[in-house]
Amino acid sequence: MMQGVLLITALLLNACAHQTDYRATGDLGVVIERASGSLQIINTSQHRSLSRVSGLGDLSHASVVYSRDERFAYVFGRDGGLTKVDLLEHRIAKRIVQGGNSIGGAISQDGTMVAVSNYEPGGVKIFSTDSLQLITDIPAEYAPGQFSKTVGLVDAPGNRFVFSLYDGNEIWLVDMSASSQPQIQKFKGIGKAPYDGLITPDGRFYIAGLFGEDGMAKLDLWHPERGVQRILNHYGKGTDKLPVYKMPHLEGWAISGEWAFFPAVGHHQALQMNLADWQLTRHIATHGQPVFVMSQPDHRRVWVNFAFPANDTVQVIDTETAQVIHQFKPGKGVLHMEFTPRGEQVWISVRDENRVEIYDTQTFEQIATLPAQAPSGIFFTNRAHKIGL
Amino acid sequence: MMQGVLLITALLLNACAHQTDYRATGDLGVVIERASGSLQIINTSQHRSLSRVSGLGDLSHASVVYSRDERFAYVFGRDGGLTKVDLLEHRIAKRIVQGGNSIGGAISQDGTMVAVSNYEPGGVKIFSTDSLQLITDIPAEYAPGQFSKTVGLVDAPGNRFVFSLYDGNEIWLVDMSASSQPQIQKFKGIGKAPYDGLITPDGRFYIAGLFGEDGMAKLDLWHPERGVQRILNHYGKGTDKLPVYKMPHLEGWAISGEWAFFPAVGHHQALQMNLADWQLTRHIATHGQPVFVMSQPDHRRVWVNFAFPANDTVQVIDTETAQVIHQFKPGKGVLHMEFTPRGEQVWISVRDENRVEIYDTQTFEQIATLPAQAPSGIFFTNRAHKIGL
Repeated sequence: MMQGVLLITALLLNACAHQTDYRATGDLGVVIERASGSLQIINTSQHRSLSRVSGLGDLSHASVVYSRDERFAYVFGRDGGLTKVDLLEHRIAKRIVQGGNSIGGAISQDGTMVAVSNYEPGGVKIFSTDSLQLITDIPAEYAPGQFSKTVGLVDAPGNRFVFSLYDGNEIWLVDMSASSQPQIQKFKGIGKAPYDGLITPDGRFYIAGLFGEDGMAKLDLWHPERGVQRILNHYGKGTDKLPVYKMPHLEGWAISGEWAFFPAVGHHQALQMNLADWQLTRHIATHGQPVFVMSQPDHRRVWVNFAFPANDTVQVIDTETAQVIHQFKPGKGVLHMEFTPRGEQVWISVRDENRVEIYDTQTFEQIATLPAQAPSGIFFTNRAHKIGL
Repeated sequence: MMQGVLLITALLLNACAHQTDYRATGDLGVVIERASGSLQIINTSQHRSLSRVSGLGDLSHASVVYSRDERFAYVFGRDGGLTKVDLLEHRIAKRIVQGGNSIGGAISQDGTMVAVSNYEPGGVKIFSTDSLQLITDIPAEYAPGQFSKTVGLVDAPGNRFVFSLYDGNEIWLVDMSASSQPQIQKFKGIGKAPYDGLITPDGRFYIAGLFGEDGMAKLDLWHPERGVQRILNHYGKGTDKLPVYKMPHLEGWAISGEWAFFPAVGHHQALQMNLADWQLTRHIATHGQPVFVMSQPDHRRVWVNFAFPANDTVQVIDTETAQVIHQFKPGKGVLHMEFTPRGEQVWISVRDENRVEIYDTQTFEQIATLPAQAPSGIFFTNRAHKIGL
């Protein structure tokens, strides 16, 4: 009997010892595995995968935001699923299917609310980050009985959210600072068929890309009374009509100090713009049609990946000279790139090769390679601390 | 006997349950209690103190950097103490006294090295963040047998450190990318008596303040071959010679997009400079001599505290109009301010009132007040993710 007690005690102490293996969350992240509805939780200090979490539904176009303590990832799935994943316990903390067809989300400045943008039914729903209980439903009704797909949803300072109405040609600015009672300001006729949006890293300018015409729509959130202005009138849908899914994501803009670098539509070019006057300053010839143009955290270089058939290649552009200074081929299906917070590493998902590659941004040497099932988006926890991410 | 087993089992399971109370680290921080050699670990989501850690020595001029996982705070004490504090276990993980009189430190881009700047003996020592074992000692010998106090130590991209030699009138750029074998580049005759330094948030420009003459020294780390340039020739020690301890810290510069806001020396003014040409553009009248001029993460406002006898007051300046738009009196001895990562709150230490106050940055309303023993510096864990902090 005594032996039994000792055995139980030993087992329990062992279990306890294991459970006191505290871990912090500042160097974690997730890699979306799009085909299998799973994600991997990874550690950027150790260059390794910690675990896989499954059961997240259709992740064919997933994006992620983080709780302000960097513990929970909120994963927005294509099927309208909103899944809260616990990075410390390696499990799904809560999952709801909140709409029929969702395409992205955002978290409020104070971390209490998560907003989801839906195609069907068209609108934005806002949930408590804690419980995933619905706080408010904002149908995107732009004319009586007419509901629009919503796109380009971002958070802005002051517990606000901004998004665009694809069918309604509007931008809506939603103030949730009084919680549960959204104050909505609507900007109408901003241009035909806004298909995506971005906000500058300081949260001041919201920019919507237009699918239905050339140019983009810009809203200064410091001065909403000035309304929406048109910029980049030569930037647009290209000479050929391209399907929406081939339009470059606007989150693929690199905002570096006074410059923005971003993909040209339908051309083998990256573009440089001066943020002081929103004028194009340079066309940079690239290997293919850029998809993402991502800025290193130190703004010294931008990294570019490309659409099929050039999607096996990455190019690196020096921001000062606007010259391509490095080119390499991680493999087929380079879908996304994510920098560690201070920029010493970049993680690259190579979908068709089923791996994630890690590179040293200074030497361009490969640090490690990790197996992953058709990896797409990579999201590190430091996004929790950034406006608009 | 069986009852005994059940009791033990119950107690152990209870202990386990307690230990699995995981906590993430993205919303934590520390408040230095300068008089008592202690710090408080705080949580910015809950607006509360979690615990106090004591035994950190002389913290009369302490600063803090964070490990890249946001678990450990490295505290640099005036007495040469380097203390590694575990924010999850609420205890000192390791403490060494590494010099006679230290004044600050920095952590390398990859998070593996922590550097400490010493007055006595003059130089910089670099330690492993893991074990606090010495990696390399860099005596600041600027002439045979002559060692300088070192100041203005910061990290830079590429696992580099930069610091200035107060007695030697030099700036040293230390490349630790090959670890253990520092490559040192020395810039001589940069101006008389550099007393502090800063690096811009992108890690490109290092700026040293000069105590011995007007103006400042600027080094472009993208182009070290161009050497050190003089800027702000009318910015300086003022008409009266002020003692060093009254010089404003350069970390009190607010770099906001294309502008820098910073304290005038010996005047009741904050200054605005255009970073494109490093020319002064505005003088902004303030309530007293500014100490810190801190930028909200959204760059919309800067917050200013002041030297005695105006150190009971805080002013808030709109960055667009350069007007003071708000003024309030948190209490006597306002020493430091720290913004939450996305900027919705600001925490203010009020030394002589023994409290820390938390304000809503949008409404200016007080959110909470926390007791603290003579609080000075406040440091949140998101600094782990920032270049130069």
